[in-house]
Amino acid sequence: MDVRALCFDVFGTVVDWRSGVAREAARLLAPRRLDWEAFADAWRARYQPAMEVVRSGRRGFVILDVLHRETLDATLAEFGACDVSEEQRRELNLAWHRLDPWPEAVEGLTRLKRKMILATLSNGNVRLMVDMAKRAGLPWDVILGAESAGDYKPAPAVYDDAAKKLLLEPAQCMMVAAHSADLLAAAARGFKTAYVYRPLEFGAHRQRKRPPPDAFDIQAEDFNDLAGKLSC
Amino acid sequence: MDVRALCFDVFGTVVDWRSGVAREAARLLAPRRLDWEAFADAWRARYQPAMEVVRSGRRGFVILDVLHRETLDATLAEFGACDVSEEQRRELNLAWHRLDPWPEAVEGLTRLKRKMILATLSNGNVRLMVDMAKRAGLPWDVILGAESAGDYKPAPAVYDDAAKKLLLEPAQCMMVAAHSADLLAAAARGFKTAYVYRPLEFGAHRQRKRPPPDAFDIQAEDFNDLAGKLSC
Repeated sequence: MDVRALCFDVFGTVVDWRSGVAREAARLLAPRRLDWEAFADAWRARYQPAMEVVRSGRRGFVILDVLHRETLDATLAEFGACDVSEEQRRELNLAWHRLDPWPEAVEGLTRLKRKMILATLSNGNVRLMVDMAKRAGLPWDVILGAESAGDYKPAPAVYDDAAKKLLLEPAQCMMVAAHSADLLAAAARGFKTAYVYRPLEFGAHRQRKRPPPDAFDIQAEDFNDLAGKLSC
Repeated sequence: MDVRALCFDVFGTVVDWRSGVAREAARLLAPRRLDWEAFADAWRARYQPAMEVVRSGRRGFVILDVLHRETLDATLAEFGACDVSEEQRRELNLAWHRLDPWPEAVEGLTRLKRKMILATLSNGNVRLMVDMAKRAGLPWDVILGAESAGDYKPAPAVYDDAAKKLLLEPAQCMMVAAHSADLLAAAARGFKTAYVYRPLEFGAHRQRKRPPPDAFDIQAEDFNDLAGKLSC
């Protein structure tokens, strides 16, 4: 393998969206009391359907902050919280900009950065990625992904755009994700693939099945393990 | 001022293109002997005309690496060096990816990064910016500019694209450059402006005139001075 760039899925792979959204919702909507993890799950459940409207061409590209705001309004209605103010909604929508990385992520990325170009390849918009990285210390070399490509993963255009902007052959790019669908879509565009196991993404009560051993080029327990497997 | 992001011109403002290109040309074309600084000047002299063909719409957008390669071929011909091999040309074209920052640049940027979003707003392409930043340790938060916008500065689209992707009002963005024309074009799109004096950009023998004292929002001697003036 002649991999020069690692392209990272971010939500779930680099950062823990579920705990972070639950924490921000609890903080911003206090003293209201809801099941905040169920709230995070419900908001996230509206993520793929909202992007699918764009991917299918029924709607022109809008950034994820816009989709998040629309799905936030729907989720608040679902939880009977229609009286949340406009200002609170705007602030709560920024929860996705303030997610914490998995414990070893910054250390692992810092190791990987010595030998590889580190690119985000997320559906999150540029400013979301910038805010998150500054707060969490994520050492990205470049922010690519949905907004750069004008479409949402797993649309082929998103992977193609990254390889093009990096001036690399697809096989010199490795997609890193905790989600098989993302990796399979990347592989279909010629990318190498690294699966990272993130057992807690959907909470401690939901067991995640590992993919079959030879499903991807690399399977790693975390980013330090990935760094070891890539000799970084 | 409520400035949240600093958008940097790079060639000449952050890095010393003239010495770097001369150094790489001397190294890669040795033992040939030419006036390498004159060579760097001649190559750079073809920069604006090449971009103007794109800006005027006579040619679709191509990245700067492509324009650099075409102007390199012309410059080699101008210097009677037509026998330089394809491989040497390809390597020499990467001189622009390997430029050194001005002495205080990394320190100044590191200070500025604590309070501000640091974006490149260069005509250089994404991969060029990535390679340069990794080699020199430039701590960018995000790479914007010509390739992101699909046009070359000083076209308005380049400044507009940056403010849009940063989700900022133009007046929350400050263009930082050693070139008045870039700053004036940014100001015309609503950006704040910081002029940084780089007396050696065109060599020690060419005196650079400073702009009038009130031409821009800030005038700074270097990035540390800029950090001080922005209370970073």
